[in-house]
Amino acid sequence: MSSAVTKTTKGRRRPLGRGDVRITGGFWAPRQARNGADAIPSGQDQLEQAGNLHNLRLAAGIGEGEAIGPIFADSDVYKWLEAAAWEYGRNPDDELLKRIRDLTAVVAAAQRPDGYLDSVVQLRHGDEGRYQQLVWSHEHYCAGHLIQAAVAQVRCTGDTALLDVAVKLADHLVATFGDGKTVDVDGHPVIEMALVELYRETGTASYLELARWFVEARGHGIIENHGHAPAYFSDRVPVREATSVEGHSVRAVYLAAGATDVALETGDTELLDALKVQFDHMWSTKTYVTGGLGARWEGEAFGDEYELPTDRAYAETCAAIGGIQWAWRMLLATGESSYADAIERMLYNGFLAGVSLRGTEYFYVNPLQLRGGAFPDNGRSPAHGRRGWFDCACCPPNIMRTLASLDAYVATVSDDAVQIHQYVTGDIGDLHVETAYPWDGTVRITATEPTAVELRIPGWAEGATVNGASVPAGGYARVEAAEIELHLPLTPRVVAADPRIDAVRGCVALERGPLVYAVEQVDNEAEVDDLHLVPETPVAEETNLLDGVTVLRAQGRVGTGHRPGWSFEPGVVDSTGEQVEVVAVPYYAWANRELGAMRVWLPRG
Amino acid sequence: MSSAVTKTTKGRRRPLGRGDVRITGGFWAPRQARNGADAIPSGQDQLEQAGNLHNLRLAAGIGEGEAIGPIFADSDVYKWLEAAAWEYGRNPDDELLKRIRDLTAVVAAAQRPDGYLDSVVQLRHGDEGRYQQLVWSHEHYCAGHLIQAAVAQVRCTGDTALLDVAVKLADHLVATFGDGKTVDVDGHPVIEMALVELYRETGTASYLELARWFVEARGHGIIENHGHAPAYFSDRVPVREATSVEGHSVRAVYLAAGATDVALETGDTELLDALKVQFDHMWSTKTYVTGGLGARWEGEAFGDEYELPTDRAYAETCAAIGGIQWAWRMLLATGESSYADAIERMLYNGFLAGVSLRGTEYFYVNPLQLRGGAFPDNGRSPAHGRRGWFDCACCPPNIMRTLASLDAYVATVSDDAVQIHQYVTGDIGDLHVETAYPWDGTVRITATEPTAVELRIPGWAEGATVNGASVPAGGYARVEAAEIELHLPLTPRVVAADPRIDAVRGCVALERGPLVYAVEQVDNEAEVDDLHLVPETPVAEETNLLDGVTVLRAQGRVGTGHRPGWSFEPGVVDSTGEQVEVVAVPYYAWANRELGAMRVWLPRG
Repeated sequence: MSSAVTKTTKGRRRPLGRGDVRITGGFWAPRQARNGADAIPSGQDQLEQAGNLHNLRLAAGIGEGEAIGPIFADSDVYKWLEAAAWEYGRNPDDELLKRIRDLTAVVAAAQRPDGYLDSVVQLRHGDEGRYQQLVWSHEHYCAGHLIQAAVAQVRCTGDTALLDVAVKLADHLVATFGDGKTVDVDGHPVIEMALVELYRETGTASYLELARWFVEARGHGIIENHGHAPAYFSDRVPVREATSVEGHSVRAVYLAAGATDVALETGDTELLDALKVQFDHMWSTKTYVTGGLGARWEGEAFGDEYELPTDRAYAETCAAIGGIQWAWRMLLATGESSYADAIERMLYNGFLAGVSLRGTEYFYVNPLQLRGGAFPDNGRSPAHGRRGWFDCACCPPNIMRTLASLDAYVATVSDDAVQIHQYVTGDIGDLHVETAYPWDGTVRITATEPTAVELRIPGWAEGATVNGASVPAGGYARVEAAEIELHLPLTPRVVAADPRIDAVRGCVALERGPLVYAVEQVDNEAEVDDLHLVPETPVAEETNLLDGVTVLRAQGRVGTGHRPGWSFEPGVVDSTGEQVEVVAVPYYAWANRELGAMRVWLPRG
Repeated sequence: MSSAVTKTTKGRRRPLGRGDVRITGGFWAPRQARNGADAIPSGQDQLEQAGNLHNLRLAAGIGEGEAIGPIFADSDVYKWLEAAAWEYGRNPDDELLKRIRDLTAVVAAAQRPDGYLDSVVQLRHGDEGRYQQLVWSHEHYCAGHLIQAAVAQVRCTGDTALLDVAVKLADHLVATFGDGKTVDVDGHPVIEMALVELYRETGTASYLELARWFVEARGHGIIENHGHAPAYFSDRVPVREATSVEGHSVRAVYLAAGATDVALETGDTELLDALKVQFDHMWSTKTYVTGGLGARWEGEAFGDEYELPTDRAYAETCAAIGGIQWAWRMLLATGESSYADAIERMLYNGFLAGVSLRGTEYFYVNPLQLRGGAFPDNGRSPAHGRRGWFDCACCPPNIMRTLASLDAYVATVSDDAVQIHQYVTGDIGDLHVETAYPWDGTVRITATEPTAVELRIPGWAEGATVNGASVPAGGYARVEAAEIELHLPLTPRVVAADPRIDAVRGCVALERGPLVYAVEQVDNEAEVDDLHLVPETPVAEETNLLDGVTVLRAQGRVGTGHRPGWSFEPGVVDSTGEQVEVVAVPYYAWANRELGAMRVWLPRG
């Protein structure tokens, strides 16, 4: 059974899934194991405590009471069910299957006879309350996550119980929405991706058509006077006319991913071209060095071009996940390595920073700087440190489903080759891959017979070689052999930013391979708030901290520090004094020890 | 009749008011005239259109319908009434007096027999709904603005009609709140300042006592689980234990101003010392070069120390007004010139930028940068340009009352001298002041006989002279003469920022006298987003733009501009090329012509 997350045959590349690709060791396998052993079980406990499961049981007629929590509470249950399904596919376990089946039975019992399903709306507003406030009710958003969970379940367990629920719900949506029916869209996209995948699973064309309709319906004034400008809901302009991403970052990238699915399946090259422009613009002007997406706390939104503050970066973990999903679909559609580069950057940095090394504590928001005196004033603030759950708990189960399905993003096939996009220890069909990447740049691939393989050479990998031959950075290196050895040079890089990115003017950041680094107070004696980095000096590598990560040691200087009194005077200069060593750890690993000041970007010393 | 806004005799300095001080010409008189002739009448029209007056009429039993608009709608009416009263004091006009009296009659009729008054709560929730959600209902906030309007009315018109309403309302509050009564505080301070001023006007000690109680009640856990952390409401720690400002910036500075009033009248030096620490910390670490307060859109809040982004600066106009009110009370308490310096900076920059040159269009939010491609996604966004009114219309009438009462902030007296804090053309008792400040640094003061005058020498005014003698910058220069000539050197200054203020690293800003300058696209051919300023070259001054303001012309260079593609690479440098002239106008004057890119801070070229 192939458990690809996106079973399309229409792109330049075709996806693979579990059964085809299996991560077995290296960097990611222990993370997947912790996800399965700790995060997913504790996630179910959290859903119990927060009332999400209570709501579905009530809607199923079990017990009495009122709905608890946010209107979109069901969605976190469905993301958990999706995560559990992918995890079962990765590591079949009877106890997990029983949990999945028991919970699926509750979901099925909660569904209304006509296919409608949203436990919170059912409990709070009854049948008459359906779709009355679709912009804020998240009914399609919950439906989308249910459908995604159902697809994962059938692909990984073979069970059709949740798929039956999903089909009934999708049929209900098809009967309810569209031209001549109810003309409305959900304020929070995801249904688009979900319906296309359900179409791919079942072949039912009306699901694809409804997804297409939802994509096309946006930008025509459906969402007005709902507390935010239409841009917040990606409803300012039609998707095919947009030239950038805007508004709520998770909503924007989920919609774009769904629109890419629609473009793929319908062969709509105009729409695909528009999405390419939007992705490239986002990547060039609205993306953090960490791959983080969404600059603003206010509206959880993309900012203007080049508006990328480090301290108040929102960079929601879910936005990185949505960014990976969109880039993956663009990769399938185009075969261009830049999208796989983007996935790698988001995966190892903006996404992975969202979960602790233990795997069970989370960040909702992923800034690139925390000051020493930062004040923990909000439940999502990183100044609190990582948390076990959130009132709005979208990120934790989203992380779980991403880790559990990560195998699906490793490789693709075309008619004449296998493309390896992400370097992991594991198996891709008959290929076996061994690597200590991202700590070591050597990747060994062995096959039983010579096989045509296209290896992604990251854009940063100047000096890469394949079987001893130099290959250019950026793009794919094609080789046909039974034994392949790829070397990606992991020399630390000191990067600077586009001059228009005001927030990091005069600063540099450290990278090594796909990893962006961060400087934490716990590793540095001098105050991180005053540290400068001298970019021209060598950067040393050492593997000894935090369970085997490669630590970087660079030359720094201590800056002037705070001048007391009024802050703006003629002649103020930021001179530097004492020379010090600057210790940097991978950004994803920050805030796993004593919480203190952190900086990705340091002033040039 | 003396119409001081703060009639205290307990500080090191005693306030003056209209009757004592009269602005008659120069920079401010035309602004006050436009405020009286255009802004205040059009403000009443806006209050009519927005429904604020409708609500009060309904509560007064006139007409039928439902309350319209936000819960705090009454407050804008009271701020308008206060503005109208100060304006009447400045320029007695029968038509205005009739408007004031008519509206006052409606307010009086809306008051409940027991003294309670809040039209929106009365209409929406009835008597049982009083004070049920005080954290969000703004009932004390509205009461505070009513009381302030009543004090202004009696001081400027002699009418006691609104004072009678205010006294009944204050008596009702005294009967309702306090130990052994209802223990609760309003989420939005202002009642503290208002009650102290009502005590100063009436001598009723229970008003001061209640103000003291409201100040002391904060920080003891009254406000919990109200959608924001207690810090948002200035309720995290007791006022006397706080060492900085935090949370919603307008709320924070209004509370601090009220606490300063309480400290003054009760002789509470411990509280005053704490407020001094808080003000100094705010001024040193959380204040923009413009005097703007409040870095964050999210929660309209003060950020962490040194968190002062230029593009997403919130810097609400009301926060600058509250900052002026707080600094004024600190000045009265301490006599220290730094508070008058602070008032000047806020007044000419952070405050004045909030109103158009015409006087009838407003900014809610006052950033220090607008990018060329900035997207107008929110009703308060400066990317929309100035607006005639807002859904949340706190700022416009707040500007009106500040301009109409500006005379009150010009001077104080002590036992043996008059202190002149702000340089305006006008009369201070027997002194006549003539100046073209801030365009020209010469101030001529004439009296009928030798008078002891203490002249504020701004902290930036190196090289100042009084009657030909050098005086040090910062502090007061005392002189006793019948003819005084002060020279404040207005040489343009290129200022840089404290090294910890990451947002403007490597940048400089232009100042001249009390004015901060801004570079607007409309005056510059090269793209402002790419402009650099060469700080070592001379800055030329020219008076020809925008109705006589002094324009600065500095040497600049055009920067590299946007690099296409991924924004973070090794070896990126922001080199500069072509030499160009950089034209800068006073920050307050920006966005009065074609709206485009604007920067206060430019990278060093």
